[in-house]
Parts: sequence; C-alpha cells; structure tokens
Amino acid sequence: MLHLQLETDPRWAKLAESNIEEILTDHAWCEQKAATSAITLITQNPEYPDMVTELLEIAREELEHFQMVHDIIKARGYELGPERKDSYVHQLFKFMNKGGNRIQRMVDKLLLSAMIEARSCERFKLLSNTIKDKELSKFYYDLMVSEASHYTTFITFARTYGKGVNVEKRWKELVTFESEIIKSYGTGDSLHG
Amino acid sequence: MLHLQLETDPRWAKLAESNIEEILTDHAWCEQKAATSAITLITQNPEYPDMVTELLEIAREELEHFQMVHDIIKARGYELGPERKDSYVHQLFKFMNKGGNRIQRMVDKLLLSAMIEARSCERFKLLSNTIKDKELSKFYYDLMVSEASHYTTFITFARTYGKGVNVEKRWKELVTFESEIIKSYGTGDSLHG
Repeated sequence: MLHLQLETDPRWAKLAESNIEEILTDHAWCEQKAATSAITLITQNPEYPDMVTELLEIAREELEHFQMVHDIIKARGYELGPERKDSYVHQLFKFMNKGGNRIQRMVDKLLLSAMIEARSCERFKLLSNTIKDKELSKFYYDLMVSEASHYTTFITFARTYGKGVNVEKRWKELVTFESEIIKSYGTGDSLHG
Repeated sequence: MLHLQLETDPRWAKLAESNIEEILTDHAWCEQKAATSAITLITQNPEYPDMVTELLEIAREELEHFQMVHDIIKARGYELGPERKDSYVHQLFKFMNKGGNRIQRMVDKLLLSAMIEARSCERFKLLSNTIKDKELSKFYYDLMVSEASHYTTFITFARTYGKGVNVEKRWKELVTFESEIIKSYGTGDSLHG
C-alpha cells in the first residue's frame, strides 16, 4: 500500500499481539515523536502559512492519538514507561541530505515524514486485520485512515514547495532506501520493529 | 496577581500595542515553546499517569493557541516570521537546580512552567485592558483565563509529586528570583520583553 516496496511479514503482527503492552507504550512514544517532528518542521519553515496551518493540525492530531493510546494504557492497568527509541526512524534519517540547501533539507524532511506515516499506516492496517482484541482492532483501523491523510499532506507540500528539487526522483530513492532498511525489521515488539 | 512580586509597567502594553505584528509573532512562538516544554515534561516524567494526562491536554491547548494567533496573523496579512528567542525565559531557567536529583529537577521545571504561565497571564491581562483593538482585547482576555488554569496545574503537580522537596520554599525563592529578572524587562516589543 501507499507505494511501499516491501510489505511487512504478517508474522510481525502476531508477535505484536503477544506483547500488546509494549506495542502500546512504543506506539504512544511514536505519536509523541510525530508531534515533535511536526513542530520542528514549523520552526524550520515558518514562511509557508498553509504548511504551518496543516502542520499545527497534524501536531495536535498526533498529541490526540498519544492521548488515545495513553487512555487505553491506563484503562488496562498498563504502564506508559520511559520513552522508547525508534531505531527504524533513526536508520531512515541517514537518508537526509545534510549538505543540501534549505529547500532540499525541507523536502527530505517532508518525504521522511511521509514515509514514516506510510509505514506506520501499513503496520496499523496489519495490526487491525490480525489482532483479535476488537477494541484495538477498531482503534488501529481508525488510526490507519488518519495517518494515510498525513502521508498525503507531507508529500503534497514537498511537491508544492520543493522548488528546484526533483521530488519524484527523491521519493523513489527514499522508497528504495526504506525497502533495504525494513528488510532487517519485522521481528521486534515495537511499531516499527 | 498570582503571587508575582513585581507588576509590569503599564507602559509596556502601550509599546506592545504600537508593534502588534511583532507581539503576535513573538506570542505565536511562545505558544510553540510552551507546547514543546509540556511534551518534554511528559518524556521526562512518564511515571505519573495523571500528570501525563494533564500535560497532554496543556500541550494540545498551547498548540491550539498557536493556531489562533497564527489565524490572526494570516487574517491581518502579517507574517509569522522566524522563531523568536525568549531571553526572559532563558534568564529564568538559570534558577534550575541542575545538580539536584530527579524529583528536584522535576519540581523546578514545574515551578518554572508555573511562573512563565503566571507572568504570561499578567501580560495578557495588561494587554487586554490596554489595547484598543477589540478583537485582540477579547482574545487576550480569554487567553488570560486559560493560562491561569495552567499555572494552577503546574504548581499543584509540583506540590503533589515533589516528595522530599520543600516546594513552598522553592516557589518563594523563584518568585524573588523572577522579580529581580523582570526589573530589566518591560521595554521590549515581545510578550515577555
């Protein structure tokens, strides 16, 4: 789905289901990171009013998702626990053209955000289709819909404001780059694990 | 109001009114910093579910305030412009007991957040009472009410979870510390200027 080159092994969702407390904790922190990342994009690119407007909406939505996951964690008597690292995202960020100009860096950051949303979306769909817990299955279905629209927003802004950047080429490079990274994932009890 | 030792010189509001575009921009970035700060408090103190719940609500509200300020900026044909530094907050953070234990640092961060809300609140009230622009006068009145409740939330959590810390004493120290800092402010065209 959504242009990803490699689909997640369905066994990952079974593994996730067997340790749902850890998945929920990791997921809550993913939402925090997504909110923080949207805020960072705003501080780095304040000159695009329509993008700032959309990113503020996304940041608020990610915090709302954090609240929803946190509410589930509390209702089940689980513990949120310390922030989890996201090694998949860490690896993915090596794609960033750090030597590029400001526009190139903005495009890369938007494309990386789009990619993380796309992969999260794929994982949410897999979780929704696999896990037997009806509340969580519905929850992950709803999130899948929401994150799919974020993916579109990020990639659209990259196309709109990526003046002088071959955005389609860069996106294809990222899709290939991501497919190499994701090969070594699919066996961890985290959202991008 | 709200235990502040020193009131802002009313002339500050006149100055602010004469450069409302700059005040709105600075204010928008203050809301961003407040949201980011609440998120940081969550990542540093995930073990208090009720505090995480409240801080998520506050972070979302601050982003909503950012949206409101940004909407005013757009409607008036102003520009958001780059992130503004906040030298008042920067000075205030020197109060932090960096050598303290985790609880002491948490208490200090909560008290500093309470203080920034209290001072912002005082400035909002002054703006609301002074400026002739009716839309902004009402806007700043509403924000004053909202930020006053945040002040209470921060100080209450410091009291609730500051085990082994003399929170009242520390707060009094901060009130004195702040009153010294604020003496050199009141002449700048920013929210805490």
